[in-house]
Amino acid sequence: MRSTRAPVITFSSDFGEREYYVGAVKGVILSICPGAQIVDLTHHIASHDLLEAAFTLSCAYSTFPPRTVHLVVVDPGVGSKRRAIVLATRDHWFVAPDNGVLSLVYRREEVIHVVAVEAEHYFRRPIAPTFHGRDIFAPIAAQIARGLEVSRLGSPVTDYVRLNLPPLEKLANGRLQGIVLHIDKFGNIITSVTPEDIRGILGEERTPVEFLLNGRTIDRHCSYFAEAAEGELFSLLGSSGHYEIAARQKPAARILEAKRGMPVQLKL
Amino acid sequence: MRSTRAPVITFSSDFGEREYYVGAVKGVILSICPGAQIVDLTHHIASHDLLEAAFTLSCAYSTFPPRTVHLVVVDPGVGSKRRAIVLATRDHWFVAPDNGVLSLVYRREEVIHVVAVEAEHYFRRPIAPTFHGRDIFAPIAAQIARGLEVSRLGSPVTDYVRLNLPPLEKLANGRLQGIVLHIDKFGNIITSVTPEDIRGILGEERTPVEFLLNGRTIDRHCSYFAEAAEGELFSLLGSSGHYEIAARQKPAARILEAKRGMPVQLKL
Amino acid sequence: MRSTRAPVITFSSDFGEREYYVGAVKGVILSICPGAQIVDLTHHIASHDLLEAAFTLSCAYSTFPPRTVHLVVVDPGVGSKRRAIVLATRDHWFVAPDNGVLSLVYRREEVIHVVAVEAEHYFRRPIAPTFHGRDIFAPIAAQIARGLEVSRLGSPVTDYVRLNLPPLEKLANGRLQGIVLHIDKFGNIITSVTPEDIRGILGEERTPVEFLLNGRTIDRHCSYFAEAAEGELFSLLGSSGHYEIAARQKPAARILEAKRGMPVQLKL
Repeated sequence: MRSTRAPVITFSSDFGEREYYVGAVKGVILSICPGAQIVDLTHHIASHDLLEAAFTLSCAYSTFPPRTVHLVVVDPGVGSKRRAIVLATRDHWFVAPDNGVLSLVYRREEVIHVVAVEAEHYFRRPIAPTFHGRDIFAPIAAQIARGLEVSRLGSPVTDYVRLNLPPLEKLANGRLQGIVLHIDKFGNIITSVTPEDIRGILGEERTPVEFLLNGRTIDRHCSYFAEAAEGELFSLLGSSGHYEIAARQKPAARILEAKRGMPVQLKL
Repeated sequence: MRSTRAPVITFSSDFGEREYYVGAVKGVILSICPGAQIVDLTHHIASHDLLEAAFTLSCAYSTFPPRTVHLVVVDPGVGSKRRAIVLATRDHWFVAPDNGVLSLVYRREEVIHVVAVEAEHYFRRPIAPTFHGRDIFAPIAAQIARGLEVSRLGSPVTDYVRLNLPPLEKLANGRLQGIVLHIDKFGNIITSVTPEDIRGILGEERTPVEFLLNGRTIDRHCSYFAEAAEGELFSLLGSSGHYEIAARQKPAARILEAKRGMPVQLKL
Repeated sequence: MRSTRAPVITFSSDFGEREYYVGAVKGVILSICPGAQIVDLTHHIASHDLLEAAFTLSCAYSTFPPRTVHLVVVDPGVGSKRRAIVLATRDHWFVAPDNGVLSLVYRREEVIHVVAVEAEHYFRRPIAPTFHGRDIFAPIAAQIARGLEVSRLGSPVTDYVRLNLPPLEKLANGRLQGIVLHIDKFGNIITSVTPEDIRGILGEERTPVEFLLNGRTIDRHCSYFAEAAEGELFSLLGSSGHYEIAARQKPAARILEAKRGMPVQLKL
């Protein structure tokens, strides 16, 4: 399989696109793995925002073909002793700092092997203490893309960092409680709750009939935006697989003064 | 020809680059058509702005090699019953919602075949009602790029949607009248008028000597920006093939309080 | 070597990403050099900012593999008589207007051949006087990428334009003086001074112990950001190879009211 198509590497970061950082990383990748197909997921993660990076990655990676390498450089601890890790799942590899940015992949995937990168001879020299994306993560991603066995990069670890995300919870009154996971550029409110979570906690499929967020009740459910009236608040099962609260052509997050991390309750 | 180079797919949308949408679409394409070369035209079309998308596409597509597939996802009607269509011209294919976003391609091309996509077995499952870009348009574009005959996707249609754009008009006083088609990031005013339109309506080539817009007359014509004095208003034949009104190092649109859709008169 | 991998072309401009300009350039490249791998360095150079373009390019190009072509279109003089040039260094080619945008490459590279492009039969017709990026620079870059000898493009020149950047200077009091070269999106202040410059002027390696900028003294030196206290000003040797002045999680440029071009003094 490797021989019939170019290896694919996705690249996510908080670098923005104005500076030279993204370009320098890509140059390193192409120098090590000529012909690699590099696909930007986004470089507009808010600076150092691990949860936003984790969410974005988790919504996009599974559409990519098997053997894709996902490079994630959101790295507030750059230069310090935090580890570089490689995560191997059934179909994909992930190269990232060990700071929790892969947390939502850990949740979604059944088979998980994590290796702490120790093979420093693959790093680019000299290593700039402020740019491990170029000097450590890019070379590792490129080596994997060109066929290096992950086991040769370091030892397996199980104490990798996970973001502290509350799981779906069943309340005394029978309601379920999750959180606001992400607010997108349209002001749509993406919750942490998926149909799989509900089945997991209740043992059966159930559809939420009401959402409660910041003191407001949303009891209208739509399948798509154009179904609602303009400005009307409604819930929908979003394309990310999470329940969302939206308002047609309005930013629901502003209407509800919703912030990431706020609790969301569901009545079934 | 197909065998000697990677298929090229351009991708235009109003997704922005901060969310996971662009990445997810690309993953789907690469899963179906490994090795496809995906070129972003822009993802910064104003949300749901069909005319801006139509204009941007029409200025860029013809520079691409024959057999390029152009994927356009500006889709305010996502989830509703609007059709997905494929347009085949002499050299290119276009995959888009049937909402008028291809209007300026229809105008420019002589040979036009439009098919309404019915072959739902090519869609990605489950189909998210809010993200046809990933689940319907991307798979169709990828299938065409890898060689699927367009005739196998559905039936020809002729009642495809066109944006309601007024054609160039000859006024009683001999002037021609078009509209403001686009205002670019520099504040340049791109009109709907091309030299071909003028030849078409007058039967001969004529160069406009004056432009009238929002009560102001622009009677200076330049070939390029540096010819004008700073701040001076002038007309030029822009790189898009349309006449433009610009001001050197100033936003002409602000000086003239020009808005898209405003009438522009030309004296020849 | 050419035969075993796709040619790589990097592309930098001040076009932004909202308009059709970037897409049109890429279409031209792929029409001439099918299979070329086009890597965006950035399209967010401030309009017409030659120094910012020169800096960004100089920080990224050397990570790319040998035989990469670097296309730079920041071109305030488009349409006028300024020349198009090709710069050949030991490993790379650069295609750009002759306006100084390659100045920092000239400084870094030992072997430099510059050719003024005269072979107009390679240009795209008609040539839009406002878009040489599409009609002149893109075709030239694509031709080189597909193997055209640079010597066939025009005659060698030595009077190419250089930006007027003051070199590192030794002051009477023993201090060295450079300038602020760039302020990045985080407010980090990148100086013009590199360890190589210091060795060049002093004949030995010396580490600066104090930086003076806009009346303030910075006498703390760190290797990476997380070493400093929040808001604390410090100097570091940045990933670009230049000394920088930064403040942890604060924009140093705002704290120091630093502007590009300001003198920076170093005490060793």
